[in-house]
Amino acid sequence: MQSKWLELQGLLNLQFNDVNLLKQAFTHASYRNEHRKLHVEDNERLEFLGDAVLELVVSDFLYRTYPKMPEGELTRMRAAIVCEASLVRFAKRLSFDQYIRLGRGEERSGGRSRPALLADVFEAFLGALYLDQGLEAVRQFVHTHMVPYLPDVSAGLDYKTALQELVQQRHQTPVRYVIVEERGPAHAREFVVQVELGGEVRGVGIGRSKKEAEQQAAAMALASLSEERSEERVTGVSQTD
Amino acid sequence: MQSKWLELQGLLNLQFNDVNLLKQAFTHASYRNEHRKLHVEDNERLEFLGDAVLELVVSDFLYRTYPKMPEGELTRMRAAIVCEASLVRFAKRLSFDQYIRLGRGEERSGGRSRPALLADVFEAFLGALYLDQGLEAVRQFVHTHMVPYLPDVSAGLDYKTALQELVQQRHQTPVRYVIVEERGPAHAREFVVQVELGGEVRGVGIGRSKKEAEQQAAAMALASLSEERSEERVTGVSQTD
Repeated sequence: MQSKWLELQGLLNLQFNDVNLLKQAFTHASYRNEHRKLHVEDNERLEFLGDAVLELVVSDFLYRTYPKMPEGELTRMRAAIVCEASLVRFAKRLSFDQYIRLGRGEERSGGRSRPALLADVFEAFLGALYLDQGLEAVRQFVHTHMVPYLPDVSAGLDYKTALQELVQQRHQTPVRYVIVEERGPAHAREFVVQVELGGEVRGVGIGRSKKEAEQQAAAMALASLSEERSEERVTGVSQTD
Repeated sequence: MQSKWLELQGLLNLQFNDVNLLKQAFTHASYRNEHRKLHVEDNERLEFLGDAVLELVVSDFLYRTYPKMPEGELTRMRAAIVCEASLVRFAKRLSFDQYIRLGRGEERSGGRSRPALLADVFEAFLGALYLDQGLEAVRQFVHTHMVPYLPDVSAGLDYKTALQELVQQRHQTPVRYVIVEERGPAHAREFVVQVELGGEVRGVGIGRSKKEAEQQAAAMALASLSEERSEERVTGVSQTD
């Protein structure tokens, strides 16, 4: 039953030359282990490749978009875009979770919504697209499906205040910033902060100060909230292959 | 005086459309700081980009060369190829150290042979080549100047024994393996080992066991020794711009 893969390609406005690459990107190791006779391959090697493809496309985008931005700042922005929390957001936005082929045990234990698993599928998909259609196709995909939803951290806006106001208007849940990690030597300290709305993580930021990391996390949360508002999600996708 | 850059391009069999990109790749921040009036840019942003370009080209190469290799093994091989010690080796092999534009203080303190600085220049050069001529040009460069010198870690040979024998024949200096790092949780332990010949680091390896890491380090040292033998280096390059 192939209509699932046709549907996904339609959703993404893409046509794979080798649809097996697409399937492989969405195949978790637990599915392969349960279907040894089918000789399907899982997505781990594609994720290895896709991780590098994404890193380059995002680096190239940032390099050209911010011609005056110092290297340290570019590195922090890249880290915020390609981190797990960010990739999960893109994967969910594209309903990737609905197409993953999981083993039964993994399905029962909630694997379909496990962040690391979703982020891996997203990277594996980019690896498959790169193999099937080359770097330009991935660049096109990133510019269509990721770039418009990136927080514009360079604008110097006060995202924390903007987020606070939006949440008060619409959600009336508390906004909480949590320092997840403090790392690096004293002269090059880095803070990783996540922002939670009503207990749910909605953004992650990395910065040289708590404030900078909070601003970035708030920007990501704002982007995710504005998406939510405009979202018209295709639903009722078949879970079988 | 531009002959230095013509010479470098001749050495690399390359012609840059924008030779300023090439110069920028070889410009350390200390040089820019001392020549503020010239408005030269340093190589830090190019290094950010080049790091990602190299990561993709090496990942792609490994993915296609070893179609059956599991993701974990690919990741370890990639790490061994793009690590600082490895990049320094490639940079020196191509005499990149002779073309770096350094500030006087940095020059006096031996910056020209500082490993991190050399590795950065190598990555920045790849970033410049990518901007000037695209991904395929970088792939071509990597396949010409890096791939032939990579240790074939998949062959299952005993590199430690081979290294021991070669060193006994030619150098008669002691071979020493040093565990630089032990990392990861107990079930996914990783060892980083370097091999020293006569006190000089000649190879680095990463593996799931000490033995595996030592084999990889020995393979890298062997590759570096066999290069040394066949080396005909262009010398006497001008240090001025």
